[in-house]
Amino acid sequence: MTQLLNIQTPTLLLDKQKALRNLERMAKKAHQSNVRFRPHFKTHQSAEIGDWFRDFGVTSITVSSLRMAEYFANHGWNDITVAFLVNTLEIDRMRALSERIKLGVIVESVDRVKFLQQQLKHPIQVWQKIDTGYGRTGIQWGDFEIHLQIAKALNQSDMTQFQGLLAHAGHTYATLGTHKKVEIYDTTVQRVNQVRDRLAEAGFNDLKVSIGDTPGCSVIDNFGNVSEVRPGNFIFYDWTQHSVGSCDAENIAVAMACPIVAKYPEKKSLTVYGGAVHFSKDSFTKDGRISFGAVVPWQNDHWGLPLDRVHVASLSQEHGLIEFGNQSAFDSYSVGDVMLVLPIHSCLTADKMGAYRTLEGETISMMRL
Amino acid sequence: MTQLLNIQTPTLLLDKQKALRNLERMAKKAHQSNVRFRPHFKTHQSAEIGDWFRDFGVTSITVSSLRMAEYFANHGWNDITVAFLVNTLEIDRMRALSERIKLGVIVESVDRVKFLQQQLKHPIQVWQKIDTGYGRTGIQWGDFEIHLQIAKALNQSDMTQFQGLLAHAGHTYATLGTHKKVEIYDTTVQRVNQVRDRLAEAGFNDLKVSIGDTPGCSVIDNFGNVSEVRPGNFIFYDWTQHSVGSCDAENIAVAMACPIVAKYPEKKSLTVYGGAVHFSKDSFTKDGRISFGAVVPWQNDHWGLPLDRVHVASLSQEHGLIEFGNQSAFDSYSVGDVMLVLPIHSCLTADKMGAYRTLEGETISMMRL
Repeated sequence: MTQLLNIQTPTLLLDKQKALRNLERMAKKAHQSNVRFRPHFKTHQSAEIGDWFRDFGVTSITVSSLRMAEYFANHGWNDITVAFLVNTLEIDRMRALSERIKLGVIVESVDRVKFLQQQLKHPIQVWQKIDTGYGRTGIQWGDFEIHLQIAKALNQSDMTQFQGLLAHAGHTYATLGTHKKVEIYDTTVQRVNQVRDRLAEAGFNDLKVSIGDTPGCSVIDNFGNVSEVRPGNFIFYDWTQHSVGSCDAENIAVAMACPIVAKYPEKKSLTVYGGAVHFSKDSFTKDGRISFGAVVPWQNDHWGLPLDRVHVASLSQEHGLIEFGNQSAFDSYSVGDVMLVLPIHSCLTADKMGAYRTLEGETISMMRL
Repeated sequence: MTQLLNIQTPTLLLDKQKALRNLERMAKKAHQSNVRFRPHFKTHQSAEIGDWFRDFGVTSITVSSLRMAEYFANHGWNDITVAFLVNTLEIDRMRALSERIKLGVIVESVDRVKFLQQQLKHPIQVWQKIDTGYGRTGIQWGDFEIHLQIAKALNQSDMTQFQGLLAHAGHTYATLGTHKKVEIYDTTVQRVNQVRDRLAEAGFNDLKVSIGDTPGCSVIDNFGNVSEVRPGNFIFYDWTQHSVGSCDAENIAVAMACPIVAKYPEKKSLTVYGGAVHFSKDSFTKDGRISFGAVVPWQNDHWGLPLDRVHVASLSQEHGLIEFGNQSAFDSYSVGDVMLVLPIHSCLTADKMGAYRTLEGETISMMRL
């Protein structure tokens, strides 16, 4: 593999066929649910990977920064929601983008609505950010007075076109198992629809509902009563998504290839070239054990399922420490080999690495600073 | 400040005067200890900041990858130790670099020594990596037979010039307080010198001892019986270094400027634009509380000391959540302001950000992918 893929330093491998299957599954579910698919592109951040989505009928996307919106606008996307609260300091970018594309933003206060109305010269699509229980950002779904005030404020100018209500149920990441995720998904949809119904009673009709987190969107069979979904991570998945039950290990479409630089038989551990500057430094704790990734074997032309009792125990700046509870797996590795690690959080690892290498040896570039 | 420094998105600020004072202090201590100062450049990764070191007589440096060695070699440095175990897959880079500069590498096995001897065409400086108790990489200081075998192997060819013994006492990061750090520093020096003495008895004379971790090098008064020190993080320090007692808060020379995008009076919390893709995702747990950074106020033309009972409670991909136990501090911030955060781990944050902005508004670039 090393020679085939020309690996010398930590390299982010992408199994394109797995990614395409993940994409097809989610696109199909959206189609069958009669829901718009507005995938989040913050995970892959790549114009080339973005193009794969077009074959599945995707024309509208989600991003997490205005810079990312600019990048994808430069690559032919013209319906982009920035699912991040309006940063008033970037008004120049919003002005410029709203002139070029159908730009969506999210707000959670009347002040920000007024600000946009005063500053913009071209209409912008505005969503109210609803907090359905995650507690990170947005207006609590029960604070109807605020929803109403913002709705009224949005109607004061043609510059702010009120699209509807947007929620991110990020707390699905913290729950294990399908049942609990389905429950959170259903509760989220129900709570946002309560806000929609009350706003409709107050005269705000035809509002859309946008939801979407990969765990919820992965385990649910039908997206139900929503207008659009915005999952992102599903294109690659990762070891956290597997650990919380959003996917099978075989769905994970990215793996880091890390050169082995030391082997310690007494400790049954290996040191790999691959650390926090490559993976970022997220971790996931399950059953009392902190993990920074799972190890998979190379099998002819693809990677296999995770090795039992082998895990990435720690990451420092450039090093990863791999611990083995499995002697035969340990014996199969030597210094100079490449070890394959399923990352804990593929969005952060991809962001850190800045490029992909497919199993066919092709390099796929990403947005850069 | 926002206008002065033209901040619109998360920006890594650098207080150059603080960094220069940190540098002066460490250089002076090395000078007074009569020890070579071979600072680790993995923290700043910047040719321009590297140049500041020349004024303090620094001519030899440490880096953590061959790519970084190439970058600094291209910027006039010609005595560079790569303090990372030899990665055999990068032999072409080692060959090319060893032709251009005085390149140092570290090994911990006879196999790697033989590999280098077979592959190289120009001499390379080789250090034995000694594990003095940290347990990450290297040969245990007590495994004298292995030290001796490697020493003998190194003498078999002119291609591998045996320099001496190199240790990294990274466990100083996990200890609180000066006393314990001094103890680890002293033990490290003592253990490496034991190996040096025994190798001298076996006929390997004039070996050097290279040690260096920022916590140990910061708290010790005199570097003692070593040939060179390699601290890196000290140029900036960070909130972890402060938390473990390596520095005062006023020594921390970098801060992230993060636009405030939401304010929640009920929760007494703020959301800032600044997350794991900016800070990386390291954290430090002290007194049972996990922290992702400390908040400092802006005072005319510099940042002040950390605000009491205000902390960065979590980071997601693009967001940071700031919690306040301090009402007057909370009241002093508004959406559209910029919040200043001392990062948990400045090396990873700098690596993520890719550039600095000085308090004078100048941009300092770094090595890029």
